[in-house]
Amino acid sequence: MAPFTTLAGFREALATAPGCDEAARARAEARNDRLTKPPRALGRLEELAIWLAGWHGTERPEIRQPQVAVFAGNHGVTARAVSAFPAEVTAQMVANFQAGGAAVNQLARSVGARLTVHALDLDRPTADFTEGPAMSEAECVAALATGWDAVEEGTDLLVTGEMGIGNTTAAAAIAAALFGGTARDWVGRGSGVDEAGILRKLEAVDAGLAANPAARDEPLEALRCLGGREIAAMAGAIARARVDRIPVILDGFICTAAAAVLARAVPGALDHAVAGHQSAEMAHRNMLLKLEMDPILTLGMRLGEASGGTLAIAVLRAAAACQSGMATFEEAMVTG
Amino acid sequence: MAPFTTLAGFREALATAPGCDEAARARAEARNDRLTKPPRALGRLEELAIWLAGWHGTERPEIRQPQVAVFAGNHGVTARAVSAFPAEVTAQMVANFQAGGAAVNQLARSVGARLTVHALDLDRPTADFTEGPAMSEAECVAALATGWDAVEEGTDLLVTGEMGIGNTTAAAAIAAALFGGTARDWVGRGSGVDEAGILRKLEAVDAGLAANPAARDEPLEALRCLGGREIAAMAGAIARARVDRIPVILDGFICTAAAAVLARAVPGALDHAVAGHQSAEMAHRNMLLKLEMDPILTLGMRLGEASGGTLAIAVLRAAAACQSGMATFEEAMVTG
Repeated sequence: MAPFTTLAGFREALATAPGCDEAARARAEARNDRLTKPPRALGRLEELAIWLAGWHGTERPEIRQPQVAVFAGNHGVTARAVSAFPAEVTAQMVANFQAGGAAVNQLARSVGARLTVHALDLDRPTADFTEGPAMSEAECVAALATGWDAVEEGTDLLVTGEMGIGNTTAAAAIAAALFGGTARDWVGRGSGVDEAGILRKLEAVDAGLAANPAARDEPLEALRCLGGREIAAMAGAIARARVDRIPVILDGFICTAAAAVLARAVPGALDHAVAGHQSAEMAHRNMLLKLEMDPILTLGMRLGEASGGTLAIAVLRAAAACQSGMATFEEAMVTG
Repeated sequence: MAPFTTLAGFREALATAPGCDEAARARAEARNDRLTKPPRALGRLEELAIWLAGWHGTERPEIRQPQVAVFAGNHGVTARAVSAFPAEVTAQMVANFQAGGAAVNQLARSVGARLTVHALDLDRPTADFTEGPAMSEAECVAALATGWDAVEEGTDLLVTGEMGIGNTTAAAAIAAALFGGTARDWVGRGSGVDEAGILRKLEAVDAGLAANPAARDEPLEALRCLGGREIAAMAGAIARARVDRIPVILDGFICTAAAAVLARAVPGALDHAVAGHQSAEMAHRNMLLKLEMDPILTLGMRLGEASGGTLAIAVLRAAAACQSGMATFEEAMVTG
């Protein structure tokens, strides 16, 4: 069970998390230098393998039990007509995840990952944040705890993702609160709103920032006041992984907004996380730049539901396989 | 057996290859439009799936038997000290491939592909192209045929790659012959030569172009005069795949040079091919721009041996899985 009952308690749990295993990381670097390839010829794969080694605590990391956790929530701000889809699509897509018909089901199977789906009070949307906080502290803590508890025993790589009609609006508001700027800096087309919908999103974000002044001052208040249950749950799961030294692949814009809350709340909170991809949602690139994260994939995806992060599992698995399975120059009797 | 005994015969076999199945491609596009996601939300994955559908001749493509074919050859131009490694490393690395210790072994296993290794007359390097043609027509045709015959029955996705100390020098010379420019436009560090080695590569490429004037006039002459057996073999395998409608993922700089020969020899020869990645070898980016190919991955890899192309199999498999396995809006009862 989650070891917190308040936002301050959550922050404390995150702030006292241990770092990676520096000795294992150093051994992995030394091993990498002896593998049968020119130095650095595997590029980003080498960096990723060494990073994995530190969090797994072994010079030969392996990815055996990757978990993809998808969280779903509904948003009061959908009353402002900010999405191209009606709010009932959230529950319909959860049913699609459970039946195996969504993109993330195929992607998880394709990369050999276990998918877990977590619907958070879909019949109880958050409050419309243009009129005040989206969640009470108790609601936000409960969502964080759902994410914290969703990480399964034995998971050695975690991807978090989401489904929630209206949640690019919430993510844009969080980004503006954390990183500054106005709605215009962070609002995009989401699942595909038209020009009039973009204007409504812009108005909603600016109204949300005005109605929740505490969101600019405190990252966890930004999450509570402007976020949603699925966004808080992703933050909870990512924090739990940090405490348990489980490496994390972030998905796109909304997942990264959840992660950014942690990064702003506690320095080093995302040391165990990499950006799985860069979304076609324009503001995602800016958010990754602010977080100094370099996306593994850039394939023009903008679906959410953990899809981009799940695909990146294949790259991390390949990186671990090279680091752990390759012969050294001595073993292979190759002239180095 | 390969249906050609001359370079003209090879070109003819390539020129008469059928195109993709346009009807299957159109059905795949129509199916894609009905899948449970916002339009184009899977970005590049959708394009790749539809392209695969055309070459597989079905609206629901699957990748069941991917083959990674690695070809190895030795180069007379190594006498000019153009590489950071001695020529005997080619054979040593072939032994490493056969023993399962190289990067491509781990990558092929990681993505579930079969790896075949083809050493071409390693004890008989090509002639030093700074003094005249690297290969006779018979030698070049034999290498093309080795590649042609290496494509296995049932292969539904092909990646070609190479090992050959000195072969970035050969690839740079081919690129200059095909696309114009001088050595300076196409020479890079390869497996990691120092400044003096770069100067020797530049001299070798310019000398090779001067010693082989026919290479600028005829793409297959560029291959014969400046290439190597492993480069010709990759060209042969890629051509065979075109004739048999097998989709191909190109690897990095040297593989793309082999493919570029085909593209310049016969328009449309690479319609069945995608660029698996963009190498850290600078000239690879320029070659992809000339070929109007957009790399799937950009991970700073520069190893060759099919490594980048092999990793991209995971992306194509995921693309096919989404196209073929996702529910439609009607099936999932989602409001579209």
